[in-house]
Amino acid sequence: MSEATPELAFGELTEVVAFLMEIDKLKSIQRRTKVLGTQRQENTAEHSWHFAVGVMALAPYAGDKVDINRVVQMALVHDIVEIDAGDVLVYDLAGRAAVHAREEAAAERLFGLLPEPQRGHFHQLWLEYEAGETPNAQFALMLDRLMPVLMNLHNRGQSWVENGIRLEQVLSRNAFIGDVYPALWEHLKRHLDAAHQDGWLK
Amino acid sequence: MSEATPELAFGELTEVVAFLMEIDKLKSIQRRTKVLGTQRQENTAEHSWHFAVGVMALAPYAGDKVDINRVVQMALVHDIVEIDAGDVLVYDLAGRAAVHAREEAAAERLFGLLPEPQRGHFHQLWLEYEAGETPNAQFALMLDRLMPVLMNLHNRGQSWVENGIRLEQVLSRNAFIGDVYPALWEHLKRHLDAAHQDGWLK
Repeated sequence: MSEATPELAFGELTEVVAFLMEIDKLKSIQRRTKVLGTQRQENTAEHSWHFAVGVMALAPYAGDKVDINRVVQMALVHDIVEIDAGDVLVYDLAGRAAVHAREEAAAERLFGLLPEPQRGHFHQLWLEYEAGETPNAQFALMLDRLMPVLMNLHNRGQSWVENGIRLEQVLSRNAFIGDVYPALWEHLKRHLDAAHQDGWLK
Repeated sequence: MSEATPELAFGELTEVVAFLMEIDKLKSIQRRTKVLGTQRQENTAEHSWHFAVGVMALAPYAGDKVDINRVVQMALVHDIVEIDAGDVLVYDLAGRAAVHAREEAAAERLFGLLPEPQRGHFHQLWLEYEAGETPNAQFALMLDRLMPVLMNLHNRGQSWVENGIRLEQVLSRNAFIGDVYPALWEHLKRHLDAAHQDGWLK
């Protein structure tokens, strides 16, 4: 089979092309959630697409303080660090804390492949998302949490059941959704309670 | 295993959630290009992510007439119709012509799952991309062509070799890149010629 191709020259685009080929690896980072109706785990690249389209689809409910275009870009960039740092389940609190330094180093290396001004732009988007303080970052974080909750609600709690996650963990780790979008959280809680009553969410 | 979950109520978000769960199917639409360094074909959801990040990474070279945020959104939406219409290889000219009516029906059905104003917004993005006339659509089409060419150049022509595609087809079907970004096309032609000399692109 083929050997790895040495970096190809593309003039002013040489670094950009090298970056785009490097981030192809995000398609091989596995998450716990499975694609609906299949036994295949979704990867972080396709999750990032789904999340970004979710931002577009929820735009009318975001309020005036949210810049939808910036949140779309945040969704596209937010998990690129997983190429070096891996995906850690949102319910794995110790793992989440431990991975932070690895993610910072990953951001330096990966966004550092780009020339300026793209390097600074991508890195700033990631830092804003990680800090979680601006209305844009809060809307992004809300949706990043929401997507796997919705997928689980439509798939009889697949990743919760497989990872032994219980109702109280789902409620406590996702209560942030209610801080950003209270009406949505009321609906989610109702479906989560129903899932618990049905017995497929312990 | 689980049965399909009936549509869940989410108040003003009920239709949006149903749309987001339906488009999960884009993760199961296979393209011909393989993820670099693997034997797995990429799917259209992860391609759409890669394409959208490519738009962001090439933003400084796009010129004043291109609205990068709109092109990013176009990239995210452009292939959702493949859920109903399937992916057709860019070199399959008869297939491309035949699929157009199926894609129009797919756009009606899929974007029609959304409420307004999202429905109209998504549909307009897709129509603008398909028409290929605005600077935004031309930049998007250029990048959609560019991504698999770059991946093939970094993977010894994997999808070209597997589908019997020859140098003259790659040149003629992708010359549009040169209309939008002449300097980039010069670099690509040089690498394509070198691939032909090396013997892995016939």
